[in-house]
Amino acid sequence: MSLTETDRMIIEPRIAELVRERAGVPALSGEDGAMAADGARVMDEVVAQAVASSEGGKRLRALLTLAAFDSLDGDAVLRQAMVDLACGIEVFQTAALVHDDIIDDSDLRRGKPSAHRALEQAVGSRSIGNGLGLMLGDILATASVDIVHQAVRDLPSGGDLVAAFLEMHREVEVGQVLDLAVETSPLDDPEKLAQASLNVFRWKTASYTTIAPLRFAMLAVGMPADQAREHAMAIGLPLGLAFQLADDLLDVIGVSAATGKPIGGDIREGKRTVLLADALAAAGDAQRDELLAIFTSSQRNQTQVDRVIALFDETGAIERSRERIAALWAQSRQAIGRLALHDEAEDRLLAACRDFIPESLR
Amino acid sequence: MSLTETDRMIIEPRIAELVRERAGVPALSGEDGAMAADGARVMDEVVAQAVASSEGGKRLRALLTLAAFDSLDGDAVLRQAMVDLACGIEVFQTAALVHDDIIDDSDLRRGKPSAHRALEQAVGSRSIGNGLGLMLGDILATASVDIVHQAVRDLPSGGDLVAAFLEMHREVEVGQVLDLAVETSPLDDPEKLAQASLNVFRWKTASYTTIAPLRFAMLAVGMPADQAREHAMAIGLPLGLAFQLADDLLDVIGVSAATGKPIGGDIREGKRTVLLADALAAAGDAQRDELLAIFTSSQRNQTQVDRVIALFDETGAIERSRERIAALWAQSRQAIGRLALHDEAEDRLLAACRDFIPESLR
Repeated sequence: MSLTETDRMIIEPRIAELVRERAGVPALSGEDGAMAADGARVMDEVVAQAVASSEGGKRLRALLTLAAFDSLDGDAVLRQAMVDLACGIEVFQTAALVHDDIIDDSDLRRGKPSAHRALEQAVGSRSIGNGLGLMLGDILATASVDIVHQAVRDLPSGGDLVAAFLEMHREVEVGQVLDLAVETSPLDDPEKLAQASLNVFRWKTASYTTIAPLRFAMLAVGMPADQAREHAMAIGLPLGLAFQLADDLLDVIGVSAATGKPIGGDIREGKRTVLLADALAAAGDAQRDELLAIFTSSQRNQTQVDRVIALFDETGAIERSRERIAALWAQSRQAIGRLALHDEAEDRLLAACRDFIPESLR
Repeated sequence: MSLTETDRMIIEPRIAELVRERAGVPALSGEDGAMAADGARVMDEVVAQAVASSEGGKRLRALLTLAAFDSLDGDAVLRQAMVDLACGIEVFQTAALVHDDIIDDSDLRRGKPSAHRALEQAVGSRSIGNGLGLMLGDILATASVDIVHQAVRDLPSGGDLVAAFLEMHREVEVGQVLDLAVETSPLDDPEKLAQASLNVFRWKTASYTTIAPLRFAMLAVGMPADQAREHAMAIGLPLGLAFQLADDLLDVIGVSAATGKPIGGDIREGKRTVLLADALAAAGDAQRDELLAIFTSSQRNQTQVDRVIALFDETGAIERSRERIAALWAQSRQAIGRLALHDEAEDRLLAACRDFIPESLR
């Protein structure tokens, strides 16, 4: 079994355990812990949903955390703390996704009903389901900090790790704000649109997907905070951008099984992506008018989705995304090289990073 | 100037400062901090709203924290840390209120537009305004933990304080779930309804209003964790319950200026309160049928609100709430006595606790 597989088998049950411990009622002794029956029943639904929403992730972030820790010769004594820290990132992701799905009013997540929809079904009320979903996101966000705070409490770098974890929370929250802001941007300046989209990727995705896992591992092995931030950014920022660009590209070039989403879903939703920006920038007048007409309309049918994919191809936007991804991956690899790890360690870290980008796009 | 007034003048600008530092973009050097213009503009709106939403609170929780710390002879060297910790509780309250207002779809808060409504107006879109409001709540919740984590980082009890602060977060989140659950309860068992309402008060209100401020002060002065929890609970639980009962009672007996809400607002919304439960428990058959008819209808007009207030009076529910509040206040005072403080210290703590309950109801 590979190290990755072993780690995955440790992480998965540990996430469920940590969430279950922290999603419910705090353990209180005596009468002040008592809870009225109807309340306890609804609380049980929320805890069950917390566990259900936590299932099914690819755990790339947790695996990167552990691979980076091992590559940097992290002390075996600290590894359990690192496992919990890694799980804390995954729990934070679930919290963010639960709120994301409320904001986008998404019905599905990872092929199952989204948390607020599932809770709506459990209690039989849309408004109460939405409210419980919002609280579930809050509960999971609090749990993620609590997991990390407890995991690193006795480490020398514990204080820095908690501070870095909170900074990560904030960056993703800022990223979500920027993502909402992009939807208010006009489409008349493709270069600005591309920059705004890459900005969202940096804050909303790269922050917690690649930069933070690397930074946490570096802090945990005792790297000075400035260096940790610098290396984590140098490796993680291009890697995280490439990860999100690849995700958007797969939505269009159709390896649907890899993302679990229907092909062209982003286009159907009218999402403003780097692909769209690149297509607009390279388009002839007729192509541009066609793209603008399709993207400014209130909805898009399958014929229009197919036409947009063809235009993304004709304008060279798809090829441009491939080039962007390859260049970013090369940047990330170079930055890994600058860590000057011994071969085996470098291989382990490279392997964990490679998993963020499909082989055909590296 | 009283100690309370002095503290208030310290707390108010410090909250604005702490929020402004943490609501915006994390200070990042170089290119990775750059942000597209439209994004920066929306982010500025969010930061401005974070500061605006933080204004106008009574600061009872922060003042109790500081009064308890002083009463327990807290070390003057630690007082700045305690001020920031106290501000952290207020910032957490704002975070919770922002999410509360989304859940209840409230237009107003403290006489101004609620955060999600204000953001809706700023960006000209209801769905984006709601999304930004949700994120603002998340940003403030993260900020509150960050404020506390940084404030107590060098204190001997720092780890326990952060853990207690996160536990407080969780309790309030559980309380919000219970509050939503109460709305799904049938009205046919008044005793159950009273218990469920008191339960909500314990988790959603007493937790962070009275129990946590006392507990934080006790931990900060070095009281063993078990004792701190016990004393904080013994004083804070009855005090917090009395505070919320008084708030609900004022809604009915009409000292509207004290709460800033229109008289009878809870009744108009059909809120399930201890007053309603006590009225149903003591009502004759005709009175009960009338109450049930009014509360199970989809809305209530002014005549019905007035009639409910009359029924709350006739059934003795108002008097029962007065008795409940007086008994709880007596319990809280006794528990303060068990701290065996010297007179001046006890007076200071008593004064801070008294502020939670209007004089006419103590």
